[in-house]
Amino acid sequence: MPSLDVPALVDHHCHSVVAADLADDALAGLLTESDRPPAPGTSPFDSALGLAVRRWCPPALGLPVHAPAADYLARRRELGAAEATRRLLAAAALDTCLLDTGLTAAAGHPLLPLSEFAEASGARVREVVRLESVAEAVPADAGAWPAAVREALAAAATGAVAVKSVLAYRHGLAVPAERPARPEVVAAAGRRLQAGLGRLTDPVLLHHLLWTALEVCAELGLPLQLHTGFGDPDLTLHRADPSLLADFVRAAEPTGVPLVLLHGYPYHRQAAWLAQAFPQVHTDLGLTASYVGPRVASVLGEMLELAPFGKVLFSTDAYGLPELYLVGAAQFRHGLGTLLDRWLADGACSAPDAQRLARQVAAENARRLYRL
Amino acid sequence: MPSLDVPALVDHHCHSVVAADLADDALAGLLTESDRPPAPGTSPFDSALGLAVRRWCPPALGLPVHAPAADYLARRRELGAAEATRRLLAAAALDTCLLDTGLTAAAGHPLLPLSEFAEASGARVREVVRLESVAEAVPADAGAWPAAVREALAAAATGAVAVKSVLAYRHGLAVPAERPARPEVVAAAGRRLQAGLGRLTDPVLLHHLLWTALEVCAELGLPLQLHTGFGDPDLTLHRADPSLLADFVRAAEPTGVPLVLLHGYPYHRQAAWLAQAFPQVHTDLGLTASYVGPRVASVLGEMLELAPFGKVLFSTDAYGLPELYLVGAAQFRHGLGTLLDRWLADGACSAPDAQRLARQVAAENARRLYRL
Amino acid sequence: MPSLDVPALVDHHCHSVVAADLADDALAGLLTESDRPPAPGTSPFDSALGLAVRRWCPPALGLPVHAPAADYLARRRELGAAEATRRLLAAAALDTCLLDTGLTAAAGHPLLPLSEFAEASGARVREVVRLESVAEAVPADAGAWPAAVREALAAAATGAVAVKSVLAYRHGLAVPAERPARPEVVAAAGRRLQAGLGRLTDPVLLHHLLWTALEVCAELGLPLQLHTGFGDPDLTLHRADPSLLADFVRAAEPTGVPLVLLHGYPYHRQAAWLAQAFPQVHTDLGLTASYVGPRVASVLGEMLELAPFGKVLFSTDAYGLPELYLVGAAQFRHGLGTLLDRWLADGACSAPDAQRLARQVAAENARRLYRL
Repeated sequence: MPSLDVPALVDHHCHSVVAADLADDALAGLLTESDRPPAPGTSPFDSALGLAVRRWCPPALGLPVHAPAADYLARRRELGAAEATRRLLAAAALDTCLLDTGLTAAAGHPLLPLSEFAEASGARVREVVRLESVAEAVPADAGAWPAAVREALAAAATGAVAVKSVLAYRHGLAVPAERPARPEVVAAAGRRLQAGLGRLTDPVLLHHLLWTALEVCAELGLPLQLHTGFGDPDLTLHRADPSLLADFVRAAEPTGVPLVLLHGYPYHRQAAWLAQAFPQVHTDLGLTASYVGPRVASVLGEMLELAPFGKVLFSTDAYGLPELYLVGAAQFRHGLGTLLDRWLADGACSAPDAQRLARQVAAENARRLYRL
Repeated sequence: MPSLDVPALVDHHCHSVVAADLADDALAGLLTESDRPPAPGTSPFDSALGLAVRRWCPPALGLPVHAPAADYLARRRELGAAEATRRLLAAAALDTCLLDTGLTAAAGHPLLPLSEFAEASGARVREVVRLESVAEAVPADAGAWPAAVREALAAAATGAVAVKSVLAYRHGLAVPAERPARPEVVAAAGRRLQAGLGRLTDPVLLHHLLWTALEVCAELGLPLQLHTGFGDPDLTLHRADPSLLADFVRAAEPTGVPLVLLHGYPYHRQAAWLAQAFPQVHTDLGLTASYVGPRVASVLGEMLELAPFGKVLFSTDAYGLPELYLVGAAQFRHGLGTLLDRWLADGACSAPDAQRLARQVAAENARRLYRL
Repeated sequence: MPSLDVPALVDHHCHSVVAADLADDALAGLLTESDRPPAPGTSPFDSALGLAVRRWCPPALGLPVHAPAADYLARRRELGAAEATRRLLAAAALDTCLLDTGLTAAAGHPLLPLSEFAEASGARVREVVRLESVAEAVPADAGAWPAAVREALAAAATGAVAVKSVLAYRHGLAVPAERPARPEVVAAAGRRLQAGLGRLTDPVLLHHLLWTALEVCAELGLPLQLHTGFGDPDLTLHRADPSLLADFVRAAEPTGVPLVLLHGYPYHRQAAWLAQAFPQVHTDLGLTASYVGPRVASVLGEMLELAPFGKVLFSTDAYGLPELYLVGAAQFRHGLGTLLDRWLADGACSAPDAQRLARQVAAENARRLYRL
């Protein structure tokens, strides 16, 4: 990022990292949204994200930019996971990280607890509570389920900075405007109990949870984050289009709870429109900025076409690999810098305008929204 | 726009402007598709459109490019709304404006009548009749409603250059291929009468209206404009995807009535495909070119990927603020110029090709389509 | 394409060309996806594809770059179709072409048989069998239809390199995860028989066919190509969104049959995500690269945001006109070269990375996938 000075970064949505040394395949497997082995003859390093990893990470481990994947993996093993993690997180230079604690392992290894992540990264760390994970751990019987879930969520969210929903993965974002009626919810909770609990996939329960989260967030003054757009193969892409949330967004507006649409790609223009149309809606690109590699400035440009600059947030959505923190931060700095340099060269804005936009998106919007 | 000479502009879809002096908040409120107050800590000026306003408008009022919003607003008050309007519209330098008269006020103030707009702007002015507004003003009882609406529309459209539908806002663009049967229409008109008339939202009535508009347009030789893509929070974005119109487009093809898909974003590539596939379909970017600010050349490029150059039209879709006329015209001139300069530098076309494309889109296509 | 050396091209999806001299209108009619006459005052040459034809083809016929359409058509007539075809195909310099033989004519003229196409082009030629065309030619009665279709497909596909489905045109890509039950299929085949056979449009039969194709492909070790995204007016665009295939993709995964999503535009980012998420999914841009003309590098960039570089294929999807072979090959070489030059200038990858990507997409991925 040439002429622009991107200030301290607040990463408003991320996950912790694996402490263990990973086999090469396991590490490569965290460089794709697929949870399957790669097709014969292909490697996750042969991708836009792979190029970004090889651009930003080798120098942090003492290798040249664009070092081949094999060299990078060898050097990483040589240093050991702990040292590599420390170096990569330090190079990311994040001021504050808001960690979603709903996932606790990656590639079969536990993620670092928040305190250890804070130590390794040098960043301030706050927690984001994952709605569906909290609810899945509630063992109540059907009739008691609604109250028990509400109580568990309120307890978990106290002290956290946000609640996050992964509804997009479970049933998609076509959430009705009306809260499900209690008898429906109890009946669905009963069916789930009979089926042995487990993963929450019933749409009535999922929608009930979302309304419960709205209530808890309203009480605690917290934003509600929602995954939208691409993810792993569990997800059906067109059901994760944030435009499908429109009825819910309108119904939730009176609660005043900020809704933060995460990632959005390839529907980020739709998310940006929602952020313009509805005061409580905010948006980010998240892991998109890392995954699209050389294309980051263009995709960021698409997001900023309609999204108010005061409602766009920065996040890495890093998960498992410390590389994804460094890549996320470096891609954002470089991509936003490139984009704003283009705007300046075109005469589209002044240098102070560009600096202001960068400060807002890098940290100020998140600080205001999450009251950091 | 460096090397390209964009000729006279025919703005084939716009609205009139407010004559009154506006409070700063009211003015800012016309720089966003939201009708809500901005979120705390945010301003509509912090947006791609805000940058575009501060790029193109201050010089027309004697201020430097990129003057801060506060300075601009102060200078505008100093000059008074009448003088600012005159200067901004003059700077837009539009040859002809086709005004949709379906909206009569903005921010609580009446819009200038067509004759006064013509005087203030120096442009030739013609009227576009808004279908749903005409129909809502028809007081007939249920059985007489179909004939009365048809008659009212034919009367209103006589002397106008086009009819426009805002169906996208009311029920979305998934219009069936079959015209609703008369008994259905009369029953729906009866239900609306019982409900006290008011806003037309019943899909049967809306679809009936569209077919009525087709008939009237066929008789009078007029094109039918349809809002597609983003708009205010009343709209549900994915229901405004112009691809949903495909069945209607096929059914309407034998009438020969040109269909003009307005705006389209973020589904402008879909609109462009319809314009390529169906002879009677035309398309524009409208307010998109203003709203996306620094990104205008890229978005215009996306539209021109599939849209035949003889079927793309220019419009500002300006509404309420004279700034939106100047921004719309300047964004189009600059964006198209930038895009075509890139094409020339790449060797993708010759200079005469670029000039021809610019002339077609700026004015010639509209003159042929609306018989100006 | 400046600094990059794009090697031999394997065109993994194309159609044969017309041998006859074509009238100017008939030739222009093959430069658009529309099968209707152009709107008054417009010409298919006034389009992004038209510019690309006038960029790449005149030099092959001894005219300057960007020669006017009229000059080009006159020169083509002067040379005669046979000589023009020979020159244009030679200039395309394709190593291997996989021809879909489902279409046998264009603009009312027969297409060259494979052997003559091979001779005219100098390319190695292999056949892609079109599923629906094979099935439509099977005259069996209802009860025998499933077995007869399977047998006919297995016979047709023996010696071919792939099977292709145009389901997207017939009923769209929302294919259920479950194979239709035999009684349903027989009943639907009976209804079709009573209706006089003809074009296959019944969703039960179409879905049954797709499962039959999976079986045959699994037995013969062949990939299954699926049209997705834009096409002629027969198609309803949003029903051709490849994301709608997600349930089928998951259900088909255990068969191991590679699925190749053709074209995809404007849903190519969705196709790219499927290629990342699911090991057996591959993708291409096909005719999109030709149709978007000056925008090819940007659209190719969008595809490469999520698509693994080992799963993106090159094709022209050329049909009828030899011009479309030359344009497809030249657009790909130029577009990929421009894109990778931008990446190199940005420091996003190394020169060997760019070369490797180009080799993979140009030919290596296709050779591996189709076992050429």
